[in-house]
Amino acid sequence: MEDSDGDSDDHTTGGAVAAAVDESRLREDLERNGEFGAIPGEGHGRTVLTGTESNREAREYLVSRLEDAGLAVEVDAVGNIVGRWDPSGATGAPVASGSHLDSVPEGGIFDGPLGVYAALESVRAMQDAEIEPGRPVGVVSFTEEEGTRFSSGLLGSSVAAGEWSPEDALAMADEEGTTLGAALEAIGFHGEGRLDASEWDAWLELHVEQHTELESRGVPAGVVTAVTGITHCSVAVEGEANHAGSTPMGDRHDALCAAAEFVTDLERAANERTEVDPAAVGTVGELSVSPGARNVVPGNVRTSVDIRSIERESMEYLVDAARESLDRIAADRGVETDIEREFDVDPTPMAPRCRTALREGAEAAGLETIELHSGAGHDSMTVAAVTDAGMLFAPSRDGVSHSPREWTDWADCAAATRVLAAGLTRLAG
Amino acid sequence: MEDSDGDSDDHTTGGAVAAAVDESRLREDLERNGEFGAIPGEGHGRTVLTGTESNREAREYLVSRLEDAGLAVEVDAVGNIVGRWDPSGATGAPVASGSHLDSVPEGGIFDGPLGVYAALESVRAMQDAEIEPGRPVGVVSFTEEEGTRFSSGLLGSSVAAGEWSPEDALAMADEEGTTLGAALEAIGFHGEGRLDASEWDAWLELHVEQHTELESRGVPAGVVTAVTGITHCSVAVEGEANHAGSTPMGDRHDALCAAAEFVTDLERAANERTEVDPAAVGTVGELSVSPGARNVVPGNVRTSVDIRSIERESMEYLVDAARESLDRIAADRGVETDIEREFDVDPTPMAPRCRTALREGAEAAGLETIELHSGAGHDSMTVAAVTDAGMLFAPSRDGVSHSPREWTDWADCAAATRVLAAGLTRLAG
Repeated sequence: MEDSDGDSDDHTTGGAVAAAVDESRLREDLERNGEFGAIPGEGHGRTVLTGTESNREAREYLVSRLEDAGLAVEVDAVGNIVGRWDPSGATGAPVASGSHLDSVPEGGIFDGPLGVYAALESVRAMQDAEIEPGRPVGVVSFTEEEGTRFSSGLLGSSVAAGEWSPEDALAMADEEGTTLGAALEAIGFHGEGRLDASEWDAWLELHVEQHTELESRGVPAGVVTAVTGITHCSVAVEGEANHAGSTPMGDRHDALCAAAEFVTDLERAANERTEVDPAAVGTVGELSVSPGARNVVPGNVRTSVDIRSIERESMEYLVDAARESLDRIAADRGVETDIEREFDVDPTPMAPRCRTALREGAEAAGLETIELHSGAGHDSMTVAAVTDAGMLFAPSRDGVSHSPREWTDWADCAAATRVLAAGLTRLAG
Repeated sequence: MEDSDGDSDDHTTGGAVAAAVDESRLREDLERNGEFGAIPGEGHGRTVLTGTESNREAREYLVSRLEDAGLAVEVDAVGNIVGRWDPSGATGAPVASGSHLDSVPEGGIFDGPLGVYAALESVRAMQDAEIEPGRPVGVVSFTEEEGTRFSSGLLGSSVAAGEWSPEDALAMADEEGTTLGAALEAIGFHGEGRLDASEWDAWLELHVEQHTELESRGVPAGVVTAVTGITHCSVAVEGEANHAGSTPMGDRHDALCAAAEFVTDLERAANERTEVDPAAVGTVGELSVSPGARNVVPGNVRTSVDIRSIERESMEYLVDAARESLDRIAADRGVETDIEREFDVDPTPMAPRCRTALREGAEAAGLETIELHSGAGHDSMTVAAVTDAGMLFAPSRDGVSHSPREWTDWADCAAATRVLAAGLTRLAG
């Protein structure tokens, strides 16, 4: 109680900065940013892949807006952009906030940009409220979060966290062989050095929820408890292709029937696991059949598994369940099965002091929050490895993202930004 | 017994003609034909699509071989080729035999050509054995049996049976818009009139088995009891595409999980049906997932069902089982399901007198046969609608067909041709 109602210093609790957040200024930035790479059709779609013309436009607009607010802009070797606000008297390690400007093909206008421009709006609100934080504040846009052109994603934050070297990242090539380095050079965003997230005192990221929890609860912002761990496995089933007419049922080794049994096995295991861990999910999202003809018994299936949870134990439980299912199917059906674990990231708990700053900031702003986990991966996962990180979610209409139908009401954008601004103010001291 | 051992007239029972079948002459024709459209690599592959250069070469070689044997060659409007042998004194409706020269892409050298050249070899054997049958004998090559370029298959025989008009068939176009008419014109095989199968007294076709029944029983020829009926259905499942991380298991309407349940349901129903009808088969050979990304809950699946049996009742049983499964899945999972029956042909029993001629011909030739059904569709299905039709199978090594690995030993080709020749001789009287 003493943190919100009981605290009279509105400037340090975050109440004043929250009140200074300007919805129309934020909206203008997001709408302008949404014009870069805009696609025709219903909804508000854009395609902004790393190193393209639309990405250049989006980056240049950000740089101009950072400079308008008096921030010192730096671009590192992999194109990460940071605008640094050094209020007089600020010392020590900065707090930083941001997200990314790139999109998936035909994505929406909020996924990424909301976090970048909310961070900038937070700084502008601090300036307007004449708050002089004790630490510098950084506004960050990471390169290639979505990973649709050069990488598997989280590229800029992985470099900033020291997980990938800038050299390795710059050498990554798209399908046509163009490297990230060449693409950034072409748009004028191949800078120098490496943005180092470990130098930050703390990090906050506002992002759209991409699900319906906040919308259905009628709450404008959610404090993320943890970002899900993710395991990707590739699965192969080798049966025997045969004529669909002349091969009796008893003589078949049908790879698709085997794979279908696996798909329902994995679903059952994931459903069972939710009884002890509601965050556990298992998905088979892609499946290809070969030879893939109506009148041929399938000989081969390739498929994949995406397993997530905020508990490592649940991830292992589901991987084990997948392996056991495939072993049993191989024995029962006389097919060969194989599962390879290709990708694995741990669940990432958000730092308690960041969660507290966001929750108490919301209270100071008079806004309700709930706690939830993130089932999607975000730059905050990689940043969390080197500094205290927190995440905040804004509502997504119908939970839609990666689509022109992605939408967050402007009032919700502003409310979540108020919480972010208050949280940042508390962390910046 | 009186039909074989007990009958002393070797010329009318078929024993003499069977003995006159020349394995090396047959082999030479099949090897020469296998060179047209031959593909490099292991095995003996060829790609001979209707109306292509390789198809022209194969057709021209056949015409020359028919003429070498003194047969009068006619080509009808859709490119069906018939070589007619009119021995002195032969009267009435002819008996005919043959198959097709076209192949699937990267198919084998026996599927089709064996039946064409075995029919020609049968005529040559009759000539060599100085048999003068009471009826003319036709050697036939039907156009586009495989249906890989212009049609769904059985094109030439469907026209010969009066099921399709020559005009409709000639107007069919390949993926590039070239019509069958134009393609046949280009290779010089757009003839005149319509080969009319209803004018034949009887029809016999030798074909490779495309399964392992004969091989595993060590029998050189199988008399077909019936050609399977076939139903094709297309199936659609509409769920809800969603983020694989942020959508809890309980909120999903996963189209692939639903389709997987359907695939295993259909397999179970088909397995159950084999208890009363061993010829019943149900296959899901193709399945496409959309959006089809590792980290997206599938929103949509399109798939197909191929159901076959020599009993209509079994086909209806399996179609009903498919419908019931989809209805139950739609109700259980909150997805939409749809099944459309796109293609249906009745089971086709082979004519008793043709089966008898083949069985007794084999006895006269001193060769063992077994009875089996055909799970694959053949030109004989359509011919059977307008005249008495019979089919004979030769062994397929490992049951492989539609592949460069397709193989039938030359001795087996010759043995099955002996049975065909003897059967034709008995029918030609």
